[in-house]
Amino acid sequence: MTNLSLPTYDDVVAAAERIGPHAHRTPVMSSRTFNEEMGAEVLFKCENLQRMGAFKFRGAFNALSRFDAEQRRHGVVAFSSGNHAQAIALSARMLGIPATIIMPHDAPRAKVEATKGYGGSVVFYDRYSEDREAIGREFSQKHGLTLIPPYDHPDVITGQGTAAKELFEEVGELDAFFVCLGGGGLLAGSALATRALSPGCKLYGVEPEAGNDGQQSFRKGEIVRIATPKTIADGAQTQYLGNYTFGIIKRDVDDILTASDAELVDCMRFAFSRMKLVIEPTGCLGFAAARAMKDRLRGKRVGVLVSGGNVDIERFCELMG
Amino acid sequence: MTNLSLPTYDDVVAAAERIGPHAHRTPVMSSRTFNEEMGAEVLFKCENLQRMGAFKFRGAFNALSRFDAEQRRHGVVAFSSGNHAQAIALSARMLGIPATIIMPHDAPRAKVEATKGYGGSVVFYDRYSEDREAIGREFSQKHGLTLIPPYDHPDVITGQGTAAKELFEEVGELDAFFVCLGGGGLLAGSALATRALSPGCKLYGVEPEAGNDGQQSFRKGEIVRIATPKTIADGAQTQYLGNYTFGIIKRDVDDILTASDAELVDCMRFAFSRMKLVIEPTGCLGFAAARAMKDRLRGKRVGVLVSGGNVDIERFCELMG
Repeated sequence: MTNLSLPTYDDVVAAAERIGPHAHRTPVMSSRTFNEEMGAEVLFKCENLQRMGAFKFRGAFNALSRFDAEQRRHGVVAFSSGNHAQAIALSARMLGIPATIIMPHDAPRAKVEATKGYGGSVVFYDRYSEDREAIGREFSQKHGLTLIPPYDHPDVITGQGTAAKELFEEVGELDAFFVCLGGGGLLAGSALATRALSPGCKLYGVEPEAGNDGQQSFRKGEIVRIATPKTIADGAQTQYLGNYTFGIIKRDVDDILTASDAELVDCMRFAFSRMKLVIEPTGCLGFAAARAMKDRLRGKRVGVLVSGGNVDIERFCELMG
Repeated sequence: MTNLSLPTYDDVVAAAERIGPHAHRTPVMSSRTFNEEMGAEVLFKCENLQRMGAFKFRGAFNALSRFDAEQRRHGVVAFSSGNHAQAIALSARMLGIPATIIMPHDAPRAKVEATKGYGGSVVFYDRYSEDREAIGREFSQKHGLTLIPPYDHPDVITGQGTAAKELFEEVGELDAFFVCLGGGGLLAGSALATRALSPGCKLYGVEPEAGNDGQQSFRKGEIVRIATPKTIADGAQTQYLGNYTFGIIKRDVDDILTASDAELVDCMRFAFSRMKLVIEPTGCLGFAAARAMKDRLRGKRVGVLVSGGNVDIERFCELMG
């Protein structure tokens, strides 16, 4: 794995051209109330307003649009806690490719329904006892489907990087940028865009406190595996970084931080009340970490990547309880 | 009242220049899922993303920015079920004018808190037994404050009309446009903009089913008064239209429709789940009426004015229950 050929910013630019006509160029929002609280200018890149409600559409569409005729005919298989599933299902429908999605049995209902709604065939597995990668590989080999993993794939990484590219193009260089971290696809892609467009910007990955494998890996210099973390940030319940994503992250990211479930809930509440935006728990990781670093951000221009907004109303209200 | 000099679209243009540097130019959003449901292109003008969470900022800032030195020194008094209160309080703070706000005792907590947060002095009254206009007049006469009513004032009407002006400038002419109706400030202002920028567009005002005084007035050709309606649309619990607003509405609006509380809840749910937007009950009036008219809108380009997003999380979850 040491000689892995990592994707570059040029690949992000190519991905942006590929997905441009199909993805939303999501808005950058800000809250005067939050800026006053922070004493800083905080710019939220709202991927909760992306198609299917999360940045994952970018990487999925980019990867699928590079399939050859043979791959298109046989179809795609993906495993995902939710947003990647919907992204593959939707992209596959748009490109006329059959899709099979392997999802954990406890994935949020909204995500399962949306995946089915986009025409994907859903196969369930037990997140705490079964190995989704093994199931994915089996489907791939038995039925000739191409497996698109949720993060550790160059086309997925560069697709995700297009969100940060849009942000910097719209607002210029930043002093600090906070990006949520699960398997690292979004963070690695954002790193490629950040180093190209705002080289002096401090770039932070943010994980749930309950599962800081990325932070441990970053500090140790090698990929650390953990048990599936129990956190409300269901999109970041990953056990380990990928080889591609870690390769970029250890080179280009300044630090990995964590946020607690309570901090995520506070940010969801703020987003609802003051910004009128629905953000899923995982989508608040960057927001929460920026908020916690308030003292060091005074007077700075700060970017926050809001990764998605797919949370059931029932679940949302339970969390707000 | 027959010789009332009604404001014109030129006044809306002047208002737009006045508030331009201070108000958000709110985004126009759409949902592919909703467009598919409707078989139409529906464009939501998102005033829930306006400053203080509602279109009311436009009218309030426009009115206050026209105060002379004497008026500025003595201050402003306003009565409001909530969003107008916040709008006056915020605009007054921005312009350095003291503000006193008369609010119903059962106004949503978020609105009361926000009004106080903006520095307004709040005085409560009982919505079902006391006359807020009499209270407002008393304050005005006793303390020399200028009363800015929530809707029946030319500067308020033309300020509110700037939202529709922005919509038509951004998306071009429309076939139909749905605007919520309480006292008629937003609808009258929108009517001025619609007749100037999209003259062939069908313009509908939408009231809560529980309080259709506007519909009755429109059909009868004179202002009809009703008891305070009990509806979740707290921003449209008005008892009667104003003289200015009715003068414009009866001339320029095509029809007045109603939406039930259950329809409003359905739209709030859709906005949360699929658009990741928080819309208050009143803000869904236009949305709900467009949805109910689906069969007649197929293939059309439709505008919906989303008036605001100020709903308590607790109240939201109670309604979703």
